[in-house]
Amino acid sequence: MPISLVTGAAGFIGSHVAVELLLRGHKVVGLDDLSGGFRENLPSGVDFEQASILDHARITALFDLHKFDFVFHLAAYAAEGLSPFIRRFNYTNNLIGSMNLINASVNHGVKCFVFTSSIAVYGRNQVPMKEDMIPQPEDPYGIAKYAVEQDLRAAAELFGLPWIVFRPHNVYGERQNIADKYRNVVGIFMNQILNDQPLTIFGDGTQTRAFTYVSDVAPVIAQSVDTPEVYDQVFNIGADTPCSVNHLAITVAKAMGVASPRIVHFEPRHEVIEAWSDHTKVRKQFGLNSAVGLEDGISRMARWVRTTGKRRAISFKDIEIWRELPEAWTKPS
Amino acid sequence: MPISLVTGAAGFIGSHVAVELLLRGHKVVGLDDLSGGFRENLPSGVDFEQASILDHARITALFDLHKFDFVFHLAAYAAEGLSPFIRRFNYTNNLIGSMNLINASVNHGVKCFVFTSSIAVYGRNQVPMKEDMIPQPEDPYGIAKYAVEQDLRAAAELFGLPWIVFRPHNVYGERQNIADKYRNVVGIFMNQILNDQPLTIFGDGTQTRAFTYVSDVAPVIAQSVDTPEVYDQVFNIGADTPCSVNHLAITVAKAMGVASPRIVHFEPRHEVIEAWSDHTKVRKQFGLNSAVGLEDGISRMARWVRTTGKRRAISFKDIEIWRELPEAWTKPS
Repeated sequence: MPISLVTGAAGFIGSHVAVELLLRGHKVVGLDDLSGGFRENLPSGVDFEQASILDHARITALFDLHKFDFVFHLAAYAAEGLSPFIRRFNYTNNLIGSMNLINASVNHGVKCFVFTSSIAVYGRNQVPMKEDMIPQPEDPYGIAKYAVEQDLRAAAELFGLPWIVFRPHNVYGERQNIADKYRNVVGIFMNQILNDQPLTIFGDGTQTRAFTYVSDVAPVIAQSVDTPEVYDQVFNIGADTPCSVNHLAITVAKAMGVASPRIVHFEPRHEVIEAWSDHTKVRKQFGLNSAVGLEDGISRMARWVRTTGKRRAISFKDIEIWRELPEAWTKPS
Repeated sequence: MPISLVTGAAGFIGSHVAVELLLRGHKVVGLDDLSGGFRENLPSGVDFEQASILDHARITALFDLHKFDFVFHLAAYAAEGLSPFIRRFNYTNNLIGSMNLINASVNHGVKCFVFTSSIAVYGRNQVPMKEDMIPQPEDPYGIAKYAVEQDLRAAAELFGLPWIVFRPHNVYGERQNIADKYRNVVGIFMNQILNDQPLTIFGDGTQTRAFTYVSDVAPVIAQSVDTPEVYDQVFNIGADTPCSVNHLAITVAKAMGVASPRIVHFEPRHEVIEAWSDHTKVRKQFGLNSAVGLEDGISRMARWVRTTGKRRAISFKDIEIWRELPEAWTKPS
């Protein structure tokens, strides 16, 4: 029975990957500090360890104890838009934390290290984003993700640690944290509707993203380690159809039973206007063909959100730079 | 009178930059944690603050107090070859530390942030290394330097923080730390001769570097902030003539009064074989023409080394990965 570590197992994508691994017969140890995840997200059957990836002594002890075959590293604070204002926090969590896991994986001879990076590594003006482009990330979130990718390559070359990198594209679905006002626009919209607030959009809402339902991502990540041919490779993963944020707002409102939602437009944020990934490679390798459409996926998530209920949006405590912070984020929520 | 912060001011290049700034009429605050620097390196006239760039509260207080016009960030642990074995330490010191300085510089409206990066950002197979190439660093040291460069670009775009990046090439000279067995091959050779030890070379010694005398670097770094046209630009800086490590050994030995040095060859290390930078850009901008030749520079450094005397080579305390660590580094020195 393969033994796998899933970091961020009480988070969104992590909890789904954990489920998929359990279904595939893995013993799963889930690590999470519950900073953005929730205990109730943890699938039953997961051996849960509440700790931060920054606690390297604890990480080492965990690897000593379990002798993991595979590491699925999904823990991160994925608030790309906030990352310029929390540089130290961003790099500490997303890069230093990853190093603790890479160190332990090298030292314990892990068979494959699976890292969920992000399309944020590409930077703007690289559409469609393809895996053979040289990344040129433009914000601290993307820079940290790219540094981890590069570090994995270096670790593979020197120590022979096999890796797989996935670059997902705006994933949404059940168990996403809808209380974080800085990320996950689908969850933000749903929470705003539950709280009877207007939907908030940065800029004119014509910026496009290919929103991706989680079930089109998690199983691929979980099964990837079974195919050594994909080791040491990067894969974009996600939906193909770009959708404007305006269209998303209407779609979410409809799924939540609101015919004509109130919408408030804020000043545009410093963000990529158009994001569009090429998924030829992942499709060829993993034979994906059952993509869940936007309306369908949003409906499923809306059903879940209505049962779990609204949450109070939480403000990030330790902003490092207040200058240029979008006004929408400076107000108490 | 411009007020400048020099991080790593008790270190090698930092102390030289501090001297040049004093000569140019700056008030200079020098920050150093003395982990690799020495109090006696501090030029008189520098207002010294013993602190780590990781101490962000102290950094903030320092910026509050002095309201720096310019920041010259030279503090780093520049042991490229050791970096794969001390990943966490490398990224913490060289990246997180830099973020504390970028945060403070943004928050205090610094006029220009000068960062000494490294030719390590280029990666191998990019020779001659030119500033318009997209970097592809291959070890944690280079990856961290490149991440800081990228972060500076992002900070400039969002917050308007002007920056200049220098990528120096194997700098040597007076005040270099000769006690660090993991870096600075010129200093290592000199210290070995003073300690009556054989000179140690990784591999066959045919790997080439363009060793650069510090006086060809420090004045350019110091004066760069006076020329706003060079803001937001990257400059290679260093010597043009590649020299094999074997030839360097002979040159150093001669300067130290040893006719035929004993040489021990260790197993080759995972390192770039050929490094050669294009310096057209820096020459065009700063009109450099007085490069100090290798024999001359090595003689000057040798004179200094003989007056300061030998040092006991120090081993790094907290190796994170022992696998593949070169045997030369695992033995007590």
